[in-house]
Amino acid sequence: VPGYYGFIGKFRAQPGRRDELLAILLAAAEALRGNKDCLLYLLNTSAAEPDAVWSNEVWTSKAAHDAALEPEDVKAVIRQAMPLIAGAPEATELTVAGGKGL
Amino acid sequence: VPGYYGFIGKFRAQPGRRDELLAILLAAAEALRGNKDCLLYLLNTSAAEPDAVWSNEVWTSKAAHDAALEPEDVKAVIRQAMPLIAGAPEATELTVAGGKGL
Repeated sequence: VPGYYGFIGKFRAQPGRRDELLAILLAAAEALRGNKDCLLYLLNTSAAEPDAVWSNEVWTSKAAHDAALEPEDVKAVIRQAMPLIAGAPEATELTVAGGKGL
Repeated sequence: VPGYYGFIGKFRAQPGRRDELLAILLAAAEALRGNKDCLLYLLNTSAAEPDAVWSNEVWTSKAAHDAALEPEDVKAVIRQAMPLIAGAPEATELTVAGGKGL
């Protein structure tokens, strides 16, 4: 696990459209089940910020993460999600140091 | 997985002391291996913010997370870490909606 690439994304949905955005992202996560470089891809909400969706990701490398955004079907999902998103996503890039659960 | 409690913590270490803080938190993560309510407890660093450590946690419930902070040995670890931490930690409480990896 040490050295793996962690990514936390925060996406703010247009008002009232969070659940639509979440459904699209959950479908995208399903599509990642066969990707052996993707160890973790959780989607989350928060009572404190009801329009936001967080992704919580671990990949074997940044290159694997970036490559997963390239296939045409993934780009189609991104295009579908874009109009539901308000403002620029916040991205936090991390290096996993260790711990429990993977 | 849906409904599980997610927690992202960000701790800023005193300048130059991040690796000491990280070592304490990694030992705390080891101590959680036997806790069945703790599904994920990763510790991370970032090249962009070299004094910070992020925890990336998933628990079966917020109550389980809070209870894990109560034992005296955990409180001793917290006391050990406190002088290494600059400022208040940032905490993001999440509800897991789904995805891959747990």
